[in-house]
Amino acid sequence: MPDGRRRLVVVSNRGPVGYDRSPSGERIVKRGGGGLVTALRSLVAHHDVTWIASAMSEEDRAVVAEHGGEAFDETARDGSPYRLRLVEHDPVAYDRYYNVVANPTLWFIQHSMWGLSTEPDLDTAFHTAWDEGYAVVNAAFAAAAAAELERDPSAAVFLHDYHLYLAPGLIRARRPDAVLSHFIHIPWPQSDYWHVLPEPLRRAVHEGLLANDVVGFHTARWSRNFLTSCAELLGARVEGNVVTHGGRRTVVTHHPLGIDPAEFDELKDAPAVLEEEARIVASRPEFLVVRVDRTDPSKNVVRGCRAFGRFLELHPEFRGRAALLALLDPSRQDIPQYTEYVAAIEREVRDVNGRFGRDGWTPIVLDVADNFPLSVAAYKQYDALLVNAVFDGMNLVCKEASLVNGRDGVLVLSENAGAHEELGDWAVTVNPFDVLGQAEAIHAALTMAPEERRRRLEATRDHVRRNDLAAWADAQLADLDALG
Amino acid sequence: MPDGRRRLVVVSNRGPVGYDRSPSGERIVKRGGGGLVTALRSLVAHHDVTWIASAMSEEDRAVVAEHGGEAFDETARDGSPYRLRLVEHDPVAYDRYYNVVANPTLWFIQHSMWGLSTEPDLDTAFHTAWDEGYAVVNAAFAAAAAAELERDPSAAVFLHDYHLYLAPGLIRARRPDAVLSHFIHIPWPQSDYWHVLPEPLRRAVHEGLLANDVVGFHTARWSRNFLTSCAELLGARVEGNVVTHGGRRTVVTHHPLGIDPAEFDELKDAPAVLEEEARIVASRPEFLVVRVDRTDPSKNVVRGCRAFGRFLELHPEFRGRAALLALLDPSRQDIPQYTEYVAAIEREVRDVNGRFGRDGWTPIVLDVADNFPLSVAAYKQYDALLVNAVFDGMNLVCKEASLVNGRDGVLVLSENAGAHEELGDWAVTVNPFDVLGQAEAIHAALTMAPEERRRRLEATRDHVRRNDLAAWADAQLADLDALG
Repeated sequence: MPDGRRRLVVVSNRGPVGYDRSPSGERIVKRGGGGLVTALRSLVAHHDVTWIASAMSEEDRAVVAEHGGEAFDETARDGSPYRLRLVEHDPVAYDRYYNVVANPTLWFIQHSMWGLSTEPDLDTAFHTAWDEGYAVVNAAFAAAAAAELERDPSAAVFLHDYHLYLAPGLIRARRPDAVLSHFIHIPWPQSDYWHVLPEPLRRAVHEGLLANDVVGFHTARWSRNFLTSCAELLGARVEGNVVTHGGRRTVVTHHPLGIDPAEFDELKDAPAVLEEEARIVASRPEFLVVRVDRTDPSKNVVRGCRAFGRFLELHPEFRGRAALLALLDPSRQDIPQYTEYVAAIEREVRDVNGRFGRDGWTPIVLDVADNFPLSVAAYKQYDALLVNAVFDGMNLVCKEASLVNGRDGVLVLSENAGAHEELGDWAVTVNPFDVLGQAEAIHAALTMAPEERRRRLEATRDHVRRNDLAAWADAQLADLDALG
Repeated sequence: MPDGRRRLVVVSNRGPVGYDRSPSGERIVKRGGGGLVTALRSLVAHHDVTWIASAMSEEDRAVVAEHGGEAFDETARDGSPYRLRLVEHDPVAYDRYYNVVANPTLWFIQHSMWGLSTEPDLDTAFHTAWDEGYAVVNAAFAAAAAAELERDPSAAVFLHDYHLYLAPGLIRARRPDAVLSHFIHIPWPQSDYWHVLPEPLRRAVHEGLLANDVVGFHTARWSRNFLTSCAELLGARVEGNVVTHGGRRTVVTHHPLGIDPAEFDELKDAPAVLEEEARIVASRPEFLVVRVDRTDPSKNVVRGCRAFGRFLELHPEFRGRAALLALLDPSRQDIPQYTEYVAAIEREVRDVNGRFGRDGWTPIVLDVADNFPLSVAAYKQYDALLVNAVFDGMNLVCKEASLVNGRDGVLVLSENAGAHEELGDWAVTVNPFDVLGQAEAIHAALTMAPEERRRRLEATRDHVRRNDLAAWADAQLADLDALG
């Protein structure tokens, strides 16, 4: 139904809202601002959506109980109605699923980050976490999706990300005729790196995904990796972008996620942003380098800080005149690798500031907090934006920031960020492991001729406006239509 | 010249002999027993070989000076004459080439072992090591090879391994018509992992190799990875096993390295081996698990020891009746990652022995020493041989050990060892990261029915005898003939 309202069942670990209690005991609805929720906003606005997600909080579980585990009516920020179905999990199973299997194991595999001589250690705890955590939570999601398909067999199911690799196969087993699509928001590594998982598990991941009719990625690179890993690890037949395995065909597509330009056009003049921006303007040096990330080891914050120190060492004329503002949103602090990473960032910042800082000038200003208005203010104020991720499925920061920047700021962009496929021509490309190269890239960005800076930023901005969030959502739906 | 004696110029970092002084001041020739030297023994026996290698010792440098840097006559162990040309390097350049670029950087890349969120740190020191170490030493090797080709333009040049990726391009530039072949003895990772090197460097590695007429690997897997990384990273045209790039064609082949069965048939009854074997027999428990490795992080010793502990925990009936004998040859102790790895092995062994050991029974016997007769004695005595490498280009231990084992011992073999392509059908396959899986594999090996153990060992042995060292050397020469 290319033009009508579709019936869609969206399945993702984290839902668009969570529930809490106010101090006075009233239920509060907290709308998440995460990338996935934003990404799916236009689907909710224009179609008949049922969203299945995990019950996370105590209050979420109370809501589940009130509705007998069934879907209920909710309303999106823009007033669009949709149905929400929260799935309750055993807390131990959920912890194993989320904090052992999905993060760090799958996340580290898909970002090629394990130091394989010593990690990971797939011992009894991991196998238990897979069998009694990941498999169990996936089965609960599949049961919920199957129940929604029972109610409306014509709905298409749209699954998301690395938390749910086993769910499509389990849904397919119950509803052989279902239309299933799965979008992976993170990188797909090449087949050798999938050998980190024992054979039955890597097979389960790939076969789970091939139970979908469509599997989507942000970039040609990740989709190509998926096609070849299906061939290498399963012996599946790959012709063009179609995988045939176990008598089923799966179409593999790639559509880069965009942002909603209208949101940022409005945000950039929001009072909270203007207030933060005034503070930055009052304290900023002549040259401001900005990075905005979660405190995730994949984001490569430590090397970025080290590179900024090397830049100051090699180009002393910038001392006192340039600063790196690192705005980091704390992430996954239940996982040891993540808390250790925050400590490593703090050590590196102390080291650089200790070596170069002086009265009235702090080389690296580190701000570990969740403060979106401050991030947008920094987007407006940067002269160079540093995105040096080890690997990154897409990276929306560079799209958001380019749109609102007011100083013809230059993007310094990792060759391993998905966004590089789109924006690489207008960025200063860096290798994420090459600290010296990043130091020189910062210098190149800050000394680039004004007209060249402007030309690049305008081209980036034009691309970001044309390839927006709505275009991404439309492309997903077009993939379903093309199934015929 | 398919039947005649060929003129071959062999180029490898380490040569077949080194020189030293005895306490009385006489020059001593020390014949290396390394894999490469053994591998090339039959070439030296049957052809007219000039071998180019690094001068390593003080005495090596004295020999260089005596011959004015030119090649001189030497004699192999079997009496075959060959010419040796030792290349002297600046010690600082050599240290950078060997201890910074080749090991650990290239070695860790090719075994997929970097923990990429924090390592490697390609800062000024690395770039200097590349430019003023790796490139300089490669240029010296290329100059030596070109000088030998000047003397005899009809000789074929046969380069070896990851120390010499830049040399073929430099030789080709001087001698456009040279016949160049390069064999890589370690794994070839997939293209994404090559992104650990900055673009100009990974390009230099691939373009250097494509200056050869033939590039050889041990397995189909590594050669397939090379073909696709040439396509992905250089945009080279790949048709079948031929790469076309920059107007040149390179044939990519794979021939698994074998061993010399006669050598081990003889060795197994050598007095030194019998003496060590008697010691093992006198002290061994009912079930003996053996591993023989260098202390290299790629060999996965820590997880192997942990798996043996898990095996004892899960199968208490083996306590007091089974031991793991780990014979480890100390390796590359100038490199911090290697000294740290030895410490980690010792910690793990202490932990397992502390938990399970008791009077009269030590669960894991660790022996860090270079003692080949002891290794061969252990080969004869194992009930299970543990080869659980993270990644391994080939692994000859499992071939050597199978040949001489006298107890119908079972091979527990990593799916990421090159030897798995040949021997996997007769081994108990393990995933190197799966500690629980390795524990269960040890149990499966020690409880396998006698006739099944015998059948597998005989099939393995038969394969090893038929695909021996001479077959490998012949295959290399046949590749040169096939160039036409």
